[in-house]
Amino acid sequence: MLKYIIENNDKYQPGLSIDCVIFGFHNNQLKVLLIKVPHNESWSLPGGFVPIDQDIDTAAVTVLNERTGVEGVFLRQFATFGKIKRNDNHFGNEVLKYLDIKPEEGKWLTQRFVTIGYYALVDFLKIIPTKASVHEKIEWIDHKEVPELILDHKEILDKALDTLRIELNLMPVGYNLLPEKFTIPELQKLYETILDKKLDRRNFLRKITNIGILTKLEEKKNNVAHKAPNLYSFDKEKYDEVLKNGLNQGW
Amino acid sequence: MLKYIIENNDKYQPGLSIDCVIFGFHNNQLKVLLIKVPHNESWSLPGGFVPIDQDIDTAAVTVLNERTGVEGVFLRQFATFGKIKRNDNHFGNEVLKYLDIKPEEGKWLTQRFVTIGYYALVDFLKIIPTKASVHEKIEWIDHKEVPELILDHKEILDKALDTLRIELNLMPVGYNLLPEKFTIPELQKLYETILDKKLDRRNFLRKITNIGILTKLEEKKNNVAHKAPNLYSFDKEKYDEVLKNGLNQGW
Repeated sequence: MLKYIIENNDKYQPGLSIDCVIFGFHNNQLKVLLIKVPHNESWSLPGGFVPIDQDIDTAAVTVLNERTGVEGVFLRQFATFGKIKRNDNHFGNEVLKYLDIKPEEGKWLTQRFVTIGYYALVDFLKIIPTKASVHEKIEWIDHKEVPELILDHKEILDKALDTLRIELNLMPVGYNLLPEKFTIPELQKLYETILDKKLDRRNFLRKITNIGILTKLEEKKNNVAHKAPNLYSFDKEKYDEVLKNGLNQGW
Repeated sequence: MLKYIIENNDKYQPGLSIDCVIFGFHNNQLKVLLIKVPHNESWSLPGGFVPIDQDIDTAAVTVLNERTGVEGVFLRQFATFGKIKRNDNHFGNEVLKYLDIKPEEGKWLTQRFVTIGYYALVDFLKIIPTKASVHEKIEWIDHKEVPELILDHKEILDKALDTLRIELNLMPVGYNLLPEKFTIPELQKLYETILDKKLDRRNFLRKITNIGILTKLEEKKNNVAHKAPNLYSFDKEKYDEVLKNGLNQGW
């Protein structure tokens, strides 16, 4: 695929790429979907290039869809990375060597690429991590145990995580990260994992209830010995409204 | 300058530009610095291209510095715009006609440009709006009275304003927008103007004081008949600390 793109580079926006930080939540871990392609020594964020006849947002949806099989999930642009040294010649030339493309024919790849970062929140249980080829690896990795990444991908991942932490204060988060029915402690654990700190139980309950996006269900969580906790779901209509208008706080 | 760039386009990142939304505050108005170049019928945001040997952030600093003569002011990337239709052929061809460049020699300009938006907060009284040529106009315009803008520049401006409004909840704002010494009502007016709503006086006083970034000065505002209000300045050290760590609110 990369070889095809380099050989047909007039169909792609020059010097521009997309990188996606795909977050999922499972076993109280915030996980990131990472890939390992054979022509790189380190792992990387899933990414792609931008066809000249596609909006950048559409190109990002395509990357996400190809890698997870899902559509219509939360996906947001968060920053663009464009240091001149972000992709050096050495890196590009190693890739060209692997692909058996001569350096003079692969100049398109070795120019400076500016990359637009998007982050996605997906339901860990619903998506199917998808390889682009049999030689590739794709894995969910706990964000605290991320191995060495290529180029500036660690910086991109850190910035996505910073953004997610800030956005917890601006919008509701959880719809794509939790199962349809969940308990308040499960929701709190999600927030604690993202923020990497303990939250006061009663304070959290009060704040999250005040947002008005939760529906208390009739059923209770089973397989729990004593005092089965209440189950909740998100009121999707109110959730989307708050997502659109922002959490009502501040000035 | 644009002609030079088109003719020497191998020195610039292809299909990539920078646009700057430069905000200033004066006479209780939030103003935006806009330019009108002779080859466009409408006004536009000041912008520029990205030399291949420059980081994108540096290219943004260059645009700001060329247009205002100031350096080291608040400048932040907020979003990247890349719809395929954002610059159409008609627009590019009109510019080429004005510059007397044949369409086939100006293909560099008529390709789709992805543009990275930056916004800046500058001291209205300290900057000198600077034209790139005598044929150009550059003016401070109240953000509520912005004329028709080229391309998607209105969308870029709106997004910058949205971002600034959100960031009022995340960080202190005012250092570059107000004079060195100011009264609390002047600071409140700045917040009200950005948010486009009235704020409760006592609530505002309490919240802004709690942030701990204000220093009450000995002197009082003169040229006021009765009850001269207290003057304040920002404690720059604490201001920068809060800017770095964010306002301590949320979960």
